[in-house]
Amino acid sequence: MLTYSIEKSRSVPLYEGLAEAIRQDIASGKIASGERLPSKRALAKNLGLSVMTVERAYEELEDEGFVVPSPRRGFFAACPGPRGVPKAPRATSPVRKSERQLLADFAGSGTEPEAFPFDAWSRIMRRELRENRAALLGKQPAGGALPLRIEIARLLADFHGIEASPDRIVIGAGTEFLYGIALQLLGSGRRYALEDPGYGPAAAVWRNFGARVSFIPIDRKGMPPDLLRASGADTVHVTPSHHFPSGAVMPISRRYELLGWASDAPGRFVIEDDYDSEMRLFGRPLPALVSLDRADRVLYMNTFSKTLASSIRISWMVLPDELAERFSEKLAFYRCPVPAFEQYTLAEFLRLGYFERHLHRMREHYRRKQASLLELIRKDPVLGKGEILNSGEGLHFVLRLPPRKGTEEDAVKRAAASGVRVRPLSSFYEGTVPNEARNCFVLSYSPVPAESFGPAVRALSAAFG
Amino acid sequence: MLTYSIEKSRSVPLYEGLAEAIRQDIASGKIASGERLPSKRALAKNLGLSVMTVERAYEELEDEGFVVPSPRRGFFAACPGPRGVPKAPRATSPVRKSERQLLADFAGSGTEPEAFPFDAWSRIMRRELRENRAALLGKQPAGGALPLRIEIARLLADFHGIEASPDRIVIGAGTEFLYGIALQLLGSGRRYALEDPGYGPAAAVWRNFGARVSFIPIDRKGMPPDLLRASGADTVHVTPSHHFPSGAVMPISRRYELLGWASDAPGRFVIEDDYDSEMRLFGRPLPALVSLDRADRVLYMNTFSKTLASSIRISWMVLPDELAERFSEKLAFYRCPVPAFEQYTLAEFLRLGYFERHLHRMREHYRRKQASLLELIRKDPVLGKGEILNSGEGLHFVLRLPPRKGTEEDAVKRAAASGVRVRPLSSFYEGTVPNEARNCFVLSYSPVPAESFGPAVRALSAAFG
Repeated sequence: MLTYSIEKSRSVPLYEGLAEAIRQDIASGKIASGERLPSKRALAKNLGLSVMTVERAYEELEDEGFVVPSPRRGFFAACPGPRGVPKAPRATSPVRKSERQLLADFAGSGTEPEAFPFDAWSRIMRRELRENRAALLGKQPAGGALPLRIEIARLLADFHGIEASPDRIVIGAGTEFLYGIALQLLGSGRRYALEDPGYGPAAAVWRNFGARVSFIPIDRKGMPPDLLRASGADTVHVTPSHHFPSGAVMPISRRYELLGWASDAPGRFVIEDDYDSEMRLFGRPLPALVSLDRADRVLYMNTFSKTLASSIRISWMVLPDELAERFSEKLAFYRCPVPAFEQYTLAEFLRLGYFERHLHRMREHYRRKQASLLELIRKDPVLGKGEILNSGEGLHFVLRLPPRKGTEEDAVKRAAASGVRVRPLSSFYEGTVPNEARNCFVLSYSPVPAESFGPAVRALSAAFG
Repeated sequence: MLTYSIEKSRSVPLYEGLAEAIRQDIASGKIASGERLPSKRALAKNLGLSVMTVERAYEELEDEGFVVPSPRRGFFAACPGPRGVPKAPRATSPVRKSERQLLADFAGSGTEPEAFPFDAWSRIMRRELRENRAALLGKQPAGGALPLRIEIARLLADFHGIEASPDRIVIGAGTEFLYGIALQLLGSGRRYALEDPGYGPAAAVWRNFGARVSFIPIDRKGMPPDLLRASGADTVHVTPSHHFPSGAVMPISRRYELLGWASDAPGRFVIEDDYDSEMRLFGRPLPALVSLDRADRVLYMNTFSKTLASSIRISWMVLPDELAERFSEKLAFYRCPVPAFEQYTLAEFLRLGYFERHLHRMREHYRRKQASLLELIRKDPVLGKGEILNSGEGLHFVLRLPPRKGTEEDAVKRAAASGVRVRPLSSFYEGTVPNEARNCFVLSYSPVPAESFGPAVRALSAAFG
């Protein structure tokens, strides 16, 4: 147990003295990085200080990255010293980010803990662990466990109207992982075209692997074929069912034009990133590119991050024949990165109809949440003057505010200062930002608990007023 | 329910007629790929055939890849038609490979189902699912959940004598995944040197991403520094604690020579792949390269595939400062690919001491298994004339047989025909195979149940006699 004698002094408050003492011990290595610190209560008792004093000291050290709280496990020393990478440990505290610091994070992409079907999931996983042991420990094929691919094929057929035999489905640990697999199938010699504005990680992954990347300014309909042609790209990444982040839906005409581009020259491919189409809240979806594709040029990607939980890291893609064959030639040596436990549990979760019911419940849940948020915005004297764009398709929408004095950045900073994180649409652009994208803010409401909508809207109103 | 009228004929047996009828329906799409077939019993009843007849028909279709059994879920149609990639679905049947077809797979790399600590694991996972929900669904940092990295840091310190602060540890979904991360940190412009013979997937991953790869013939001590220098490589992948597949241990002198090479020119790195050092069965291990490394040039990799289960897909690496910083600059956008459920469960499994006890039990278990296998081999009239190489370090060893008539390939084929899979050492070479590597066979005994050692040794004896 740590022992310090902290003198009371006029200049330095007690908690500050304690924080300094612990800080020095961690920095000097006397307390090893990763070592568990005594509980607040125990330390307070031991030093004859109030729990409040220890709490303030721990909080200060935590803000500096010297202490990392871990739910139910207490506090750990994390030395941001010469060896350390302070960012990492600081980012790792779920408590700090979501609970303590932020009132509402509209820039996040998670789901609410309440939203996850823990009971059904644990029941199935328990049964799998009890009854399916041989399969759970058996070698899984590179593409993923067959029972899961069979159920995903059903989901694609029933929900998306996409016909895909299980042997063309590849299961991955999140979409970024699939971007890397796609690159190994397509080659790093290609030029990848992406929507601008668009989803940053896709470009980051392909760049990291040395591929050339072009950002194509989208128009009202999405990726413009003429600019795509001009770019000289042979691969294009698009989000037709719900453009990220603008939320626009690609009209059918543009979908056909893209397929036209793809079949116009050999070796061209379209990567259709259908990341949240199950969460379309209103109306009927347009057919996916892959379901219109007769030339077999579309690589379709989807994920369970939006429908179940992003922390579960299960995504999948449907490969065109050419790439499915290349996969089994070139990448069969891979082990599917998703643990067999999750794969078999999810397969049963799908097979027994839990997923369908869950989707139904979630869409209802998010419709209500979105409605209450939109109403608060419309009623607000400041935000109410704004315009809501594309609120029907999924878990985020864009709020366009009338021209104001002051920069977007300042407004966003003011909002952050009062605990509300929100991203301006302009921050998703690589190239020049068109005027109509100014004063637009992307609101991902799915991870934000409904009860903080009220205070969050008031904070935004004050920040943007 | 399928209905066919199968005529009894002299030329075609009943089961053959039934198989043909189902085959046609699957090929024609009348039975959709992924569709569940009726149970043997139900179909037999319905068609007025014996269960045996239906069983033989299903087995034949299964061998052809038209039908895929799935434990407890029955039989599924998998069409190897125009769209299909037959390999994939055929490979996916855990039943066929491990239970039905093979007597003993010495070419596998898994673990026995019995070996996995299911009870403790399910208990912890259940508790995590019940009590740790916010953390399980919270955003995990790219490097992995902090509690797990803290426990891995402890494991490295206590078991391997490696000091690594949690913020230099990166958790990945299997070693192949980490090879890809390493390439993103080091760049695809590098030349990667690998041991020859060596671990194929490492080379495959780096080649897939467009990096140049050199295979360096190892000598008795492992990777020879002079050949490494001559290769012009700036990155080298080695398995010092237990060379794969020869099983040799790199002596301390060679370890220092490699570190010398690494610090001899800027930008050089050694990737130390410590894939099974916890499973060293006898004697004390030599210090890992990373623990001798003062120039911070070693990237250390390890995995839980050998100690827990390969299907769990959890591996980790320890990054040198330079790469740890690059990771948090370039790759922080990644989501750790391991589901939070597994990460927190494993963290608790480690923290509560289950892993240590499990390791202890497993090493005892494998010592006994290996001893019984070695005794059977020594007593065998044919195999007994051979020489056992490097049986002390881990879960595989090499059996060198005296020169014989006939090729290795024929012998391996004969063994396979009697249900025993074994790989010749020569098959791990990229370059020319030295004479002393001829008639050497790699036996990975960990996934093979001890009760099949007897018949397996007899089969090998017959095949190699």
